[in-house]
Amino acid sequence: MNLQEAVLQTARLAHQAARDAASLSMKLKEKILLDMARALRDQRSYLQQENQKDIAAGRGKGLSTAMVDRLTLSEKVIDQTALGLEEIAAFSDPVGEIVRIWTRPNGMRVGRMRIPLGVIGIIYEARPNVTADAAGLCLKAGNAVILRGGSEAVNSNKAIVALFKEVFRGNGVNENIVNLLPTTEREAILHMLKLENLIDLVIPRGGEELIRFVAQNSLIPVIKHYKGVCHLYVDEAADMDMAVKLAFNSKVQRPGVCNAMETLLVHSAVADLFLPVMAEKLASAGVELRGCERSRGLVPSMKPASEEDWYAEYLDLILAVRVVDSIDQAIAHIATYGSLHTESIVTTNYDAAQKFLREVNSSSVIVNASTRMSDGYVYGLGAEIGISTTKLHAYGPMGVEDLTTTKFIVLGDGQIRE
Amino acid sequence: MNLQEAVLQTARLAHQAARDAASLSMKLKEKILLDMARALRDQRSYLQQENQKDIAAGRGKGLSTAMVDRLTLSEKVIDQTALGLEEIAAFSDPVGEIVRIWTRPNGMRVGRMRIPLGVIGIIYEARPNVTADAAGLCLKAGNAVILRGGSEAVNSNKAIVALFKEVFRGNGVNENIVNLLPTTEREAILHMLKLENLIDLVIPRGGEELIRFVAQNSLIPVIKHYKGVCHLYVDEAADMDMAVKLAFNSKVQRPGVCNAMETLLVHSAVADLFLPVMAEKLASAGVELRGCERSRGLVPSMKPASEEDWYAEYLDLILAVRVVDSIDQAIAHIATYGSLHTESIVTTNYDAAQKFLREVNSSSVIVNASTRMSDGYVYGLGAEIGISTTKLHAYGPMGVEDLTTTKFIVLGDGQIRE
Repeated sequence: MNLQEAVLQTARLAHQAARDAASLSMKLKEKILLDMARALRDQRSYLQQENQKDIAAGRGKGLSTAMVDRLTLSEKVIDQTALGLEEIAAFSDPVGEIVRIWTRPNGMRVGRMRIPLGVIGIIYEARPNVTADAAGLCLKAGNAVILRGGSEAVNSNKAIVALFKEVFRGNGVNENIVNLLPTTEREAILHMLKLENLIDLVIPRGGEELIRFVAQNSLIPVIKHYKGVCHLYVDEAADMDMAVKLAFNSKVQRPGVCNAMETLLVHSAVADLFLPVMAEKLASAGVELRGCERSRGLVPSMKPASEEDWYAEYLDLILAVRVVDSIDQAIAHIATYGSLHTESIVTTNYDAAQKFLREVNSSSVIVNASTRMSDGYVYGLGAEIGISTTKLHAYGPMGVEDLTTTKFIVLGDGQIRE
Repeated sequence: MNLQEAVLQTARLAHQAARDAASLSMKLKEKILLDMARALRDQRSYLQQENQKDIAAGRGKGLSTAMVDRLTLSEKVIDQTALGLEEIAAFSDPVGEIVRIWTRPNGMRVGRMRIPLGVIGIIYEARPNVTADAAGLCLKAGNAVILRGGSEAVNSNKAIVALFKEVFRGNGVNENIVNLLPTTEREAILHMLKLENLIDLVIPRGGEELIRFVAQNSLIPVIKHYKGVCHLYVDEAADMDMAVKLAFNSKVQRPGVCNAMETLLVHSAVADLFLPVMAEKLASAGVELRGCERSRGLVPSMKPASEEDWYAEYLDLILAVRVVDSIDQAIAHIATYGSLHTESIVTTNYDAAQKFLREVNSSSVIVNASTRMSDGYVYGLGAEIGISTTKLHAYGPMGVEDLTTTKFIVLGDGQIRE
């Protein structure tokens, strides 16, 4: 069997299994998820032994320490992953929920019922724990899943999927609900992305290059996000202590992630009060500031910001700073330079808060909280399979519910079209 | 300016106008929609004069009578189109609606607020009234629209869009909220489909060939449906009179549309009672029946059905008929041969109804009503911009609400990530 046929066969088996996944009872899905968690814990020595092969191979290929760290199934990572599956088990089941139902003048009731999407492809890189998270989330939403992890994690991913398939068989359930692509070659991704009749959705997770490759080659709908150029705007009516606290947290708490602040916008009426204090606090945490001319007038130690700085996703202890003369200017700046990820306003003014909520159309729009709060777990979605900055289907953090769609149901008593 | 630049410029203007469209008040959108309706009525002689040019050109090119009929802006079509815009004006405004809001343990409130998609491209063929419908629906949902009608209707479409732009200007609103692609050449569609950073969604309406062309060439998300192979299943517990009435309406009331029944499935326990009566009634309406062997045993006048008949979308007075031994067999038939459009069960049995509703995952699943009820107007969505048989974003008839998405909003009082 050549590569293309092997991918096709995996997709066919997943497509068949999707019908079984859709009809699993809530109780049985819960039991399988708990069994999956237990399997990870009970078989941790097997998992770590397989994981060691990947780590050794990675070191041999000269992977960076950071990459090896991401690759490692430590005791802690295994425990957290198992715990994650137990949390997913406890979520309410989205499948079959009637989202809304209304009655028409002819007496017919029309509603929308939540159903699984079908087959979901997840394309990701080095973290083998994504294998377990994605399998758990897709199962909870009644979908089959095709996983394509990175070549660095191939032995770890195979071991995890083998454990899960054993759990499925042990519960008398179709083991093809969870599938690993038979090879990690990039060509296999290309074949997979053409199977629009067998796969309903593809979610790429990883670096921008991988995501662009998937988006450009897919006939299947793709949900993705490229980057997070997140803004925090300190309004003229901001509480100054809160503004300092939120800006500091947004930048410093974990600068390497997509919901960290990259540009700080400050209303000119409070810039002289706010910026010197803020700059000192950020500098003490090692943050490099790059400001507009007016910012630099107030904080001369800032480096000058160039046009590129407004577009930059630093993912680092660097921050662009700009003084604006109005909330409209702040909103216009965000519309021009933002990436539709997350924007926050700090204000005590009701109208300013409402205007910001209404006119900024990024996927998360926040009043008086850190940009770092933009997250599926923090929002209470339970878990997050990805973040979308494109508006179709899902926009923002995607939880279990976003792995479903709704169909129309009609309850009639003999209605016909006249 | 070459073709590619002209398309790019139209898309850029629409992209800028989308921000204006998103912030229009409910009242102003209502007024503009009513003004658009009035413009169609007041300028009907101008519209008909432009329309005559298209009709004359069409006749010259040898268009079929049916095509000329679709192309014609008769008094009745103009009145209905104006009425449609008035109906859209009266809908509730989806923009800004908070779909749900919940409180997190840290006191932060998290919600989902409905917002416009941005710029929507509509690619369609000969009916100039689609120009007005699509413009109205997109405006109501706060979007800008780029319309690409067929070359047969070019003068009619230009006239309608010119009237609408005048209405926008008269209301002091950006006229680029509604745009016609500057040329009807197919190459222009190709250029448009690559502008993923300027256009958020493309909806092709028309023949399967056009739709496949769009789906295969688009970098922008596409919502579409290819065909409707709709089933009606007469359960063993069906009321026989209702079954005859619903099957007749599903097939005969308007056979040329996508929600007409194409295959009738009958439980073997009632086939001998039901099929002879049904066949006679359908034959009297000129319907040709193509049955499985068991159907033909009961109604010998039926032609034999081949495997292709189960896949066929006749759009005509032809019906495939199959006897099944169980509801499971009916559901399996639908899963194998259906097109995810609309399926109906006729039954008085509660469990059968629930099973059908739960296990059939077509975009509309109906109990005890005609398949012809699957329609945005009939469902009460107000109007329908298309039907989706792919599950991402929208599934089934798409109304105004499906031209929006939701963003996350967060109302905090100083929350940070620890």
